[in-house]
Amino acid sequence: MSPVSKKGIAILGSTGSIGRQALEVVKAHCDHFEIEVLSAQDNAPLLIRQAIDFQPNAVVIGNHNHYQNVKDALKQYPIKVFAGKQALNEVTSFGGIHIVLTAMVGVAGLEPTIAAIEAGKQIALANKETLVVAGSLVTKLAREKGVNIYPVDSEHSAIFQCLAGEFHNPIEKVYLTASGGPFRGKKHDFLATVKKEEALKHPNWNMGCKITIDSATLMNKGLEVIEAKWLFGLKPEQIKVIVHPQSIIHSIVQFTDGSMKAQMGLPDMKLPILYALTYPQRLLTDFPRFDFADFSQLSFEAPDIVSFPNLKLAYDAIEKGGNMPCILNAANEIAVAAFLKDKVGFLEMSDIIAQCMQKISFINEPNLQDFINTDIETRKLANSLIVKRQNNYTLLNNSNPEIF
Amino acid sequence: MSPVSKKGIAILGSTGSIGRQALEVVKAHCDHFEIEVLSAQDNAPLLIRQAIDFQPNAVVIGNHNHYQNVKDALKQYPIKVFAGKQALNEVTSFGGIHIVLTAMVGVAGLEPTIAAIEAGKQIALANKETLVVAGSLVTKLAREKGVNIYPVDSEHSAIFQCLAGEFHNPIEKVYLTASGGPFRGKKHDFLATVKKEEALKHPNWNMGCKITIDSATLMNKGLEVIEAKWLFGLKPEQIKVIVHPQSIIHSIVQFTDGSMKAQMGLPDMKLPILYALTYPQRLLTDFPRFDFADFSQLSFEAPDIVSFPNLKLAYDAIEKGGNMPCILNAANEIAVAAFLKDKVGFLEMSDIIAQCMQKISFINEPNLQDFINTDIETRKLANSLIVKRQNNYTLLNNSNPEIF
Repeated sequence: MSPVSKKGIAILGSTGSIGRQALEVVKAHCDHFEIEVLSAQDNAPLLIRQAIDFQPNAVVIGNHNHYQNVKDALKQYPIKVFAGKQALNEVTSFGGIHIVLTAMVGVAGLEPTIAAIEAGKQIALANKETLVVAGSLVTKLAREKGVNIYPVDSEHSAIFQCLAGEFHNPIEKVYLTASGGPFRGKKHDFLATVKKEEALKHPNWNMGCKITIDSATLMNKGLEVIEAKWLFGLKPEQIKVIVHPQSIIHSIVQFTDGSMKAQMGLPDMKLPILYALTYPQRLLTDFPRFDFADFSQLSFEAPDIVSFPNLKLAYDAIEKGGNMPCILNAANEIAVAAFLKDKVGFLEMSDIIAQCMQKISFINEPNLQDFINTDIETRKLANSLIVKRQNNYTLLNNSNPEIF
Repeated sequence: MSPVSKKGIAILGSTGSIGRQALEVVKAHCDHFEIEVLSAQDNAPLLIRQAIDFQPNAVVIGNHNHYQNVKDALKQYPIKVFAGKQALNEVTSFGGIHIVLTAMVGVAGLEPTIAAIEAGKQIALANKETLVVAGSLVTKLAREKGVNIYPVDSEHSAIFQCLAGEFHNPIEKVYLTASGGPFRGKKHDFLATVKKEEALKHPNWNMGCKITIDSATLMNKGLEVIEAKWLFGLKPEQIKVIVHPQSIIHSIVQFTDGSMKAQMGLPDMKLPILYALTYPQRLLTDFPRFDFADFSQLSFEAPDIVSFPNLKLAYDAIEKGGNMPCILNAANEIAVAAFLKDKVGFLEMSDIIAQCMQKISFINEPNLQDFINTDIETRKLANSLIVKRQNNYTLLNNSNPEIF
């Protein structure tokens, strides 16, 4: 092997599912990578262990309450320790960082990603909300700064892998594959009563809680449709969703000659993480390999947008444009959090999102502040809708006990 | 559209299945291509019609008996008319030819392909026998002359399409998909009695007679394994065959990171023909598009090399190397011709090939003349084996009529 210069990596959200898998990947290829920055919102103990293990230049703990704890734990190491949102926006500009992996959950990823692009750093994008909420703004900025956004989501990585060597050829259509989640084939009456414990059992992918619920509602696929639009410059009608329960084909590109290219493999987030960090090179890995002996049938079906209205809502949002995907995303984040606390039912999540999309003021060409305001306003409304539902529910239960 | 300079094309074997489809493709994209040379072995009437239609610089009729006929028919056009094998080796060196599509049947393609490479022309290779018989020699020559060999076989085109943008990344494995042919799932007793009419009914692909029989015996896949070895620099153990009855996934590449890329679409030879002529560009086509609504299941199974021993023979030939694939190919051409004339049974084809592989002298590092001699010698032996079988059969039938 010829010697390679190590690539400096910042991982924002290193204690989450993607962050932890990224560190496994980095460790397995330590001759290729150097960890420059790690950050976490709340999980100080894990951030400390990771920092000791990988000896980054700096760590950022989002929650100020844990700052002293992290600072003390790392005092014998030459590791800078920072806290808070502003620090996160600043550390990504440090020299030595080649690529920033944005693996935070939710819209919290937006501002640090913009800061990293402003600093001219390449982006490995695991935080899809960045593009869902502010795709127009973020992709425009990336073009201006000469920054590439490498997708980490397995579907978008699949499309990106299929586009290697084809960037000069127009895309006719992409198929985003969807596992269908744990409730594939289920209908309204069943879905109305499902609990978070069932929704958290994803058949194929091992992921964080938020994204697992989004997979169960198909909102994850809806957010991915919006992400694909911005990453690959597509119109909504060029983006098709196809349910593929085995999750072996991760997505498909169809070119204008009719040829289709698919990227396949066992479901394993480590592969797209690694590819985003090493593109256009592929490294030798010991990831488990796909075997046709285990998959003699690959099956495909249309998504059920009647039983799972979130996918339809996402297409509505992207068609409308402006701040509508931001509204969709914020309402969904609140709805999922409420579902995870047993405050709303599975199907009520869609109702809340739909109501927010109707009620929040539409802005056709929002700037960053508009997006931030829309996000705040939508969360407020979504929360109030949830409280109202709970009150009604309590009222109903208390005032009419004899009915049941 | 910006104006493009037209690519000069020579089609060797323009009256065959690939040749005719290539001309359809050229006609549909006449602003991109100019036909410089057309050639046919025997089908003078069609060659004449094609020449009048496409106005090439020159045509070559292989069979001298038709020369005057072609000459007379084209006398009012500024089209040079030649006849015979030597002319075919010379016309491909004409200026104005950018790429030579080699679409002749069988080993007859070898010498003209070598001549075209010698002349520094790019090759669109539909004649797989060229690489099966003399892969070492042909690929070495192409490297020396800076000639690219673009595959036209759908499987190899699929691999080539998946390798776009990935040529710097090592291949771990390729999967050549096989439809399984019309007799997939059939066993010895059934196969012993099948007739050419049944063997010629391919479920998915519309091809010439020789290749359709080769598909039914799995020899086509065997030849493709050998072709893949030379096109992509693979070891035999890196090339896997997987039966995929729907013929939608045309082949798959697995890289050393574990990622797999597949090329997919409806079975249509026009797409790989066009891609070979336009790589790395893709042109807009009106070829029918794949629709998941028509294919809700894609299935895969291991090939049955006990019932279809030709595939095993091909792996044996490639393992042995030297002139062994040449022996395999020559014996197969004779066996298939005899089967098409009802002179041998379906399973006897494999016996003849196996016997030739045992009996013809092995040469470890053959030169072109060795290949030509091996080819002639093997055909002689194969023909004599067929005559012997027929005599035995006749003897058996005549001497023991009372048994039946």
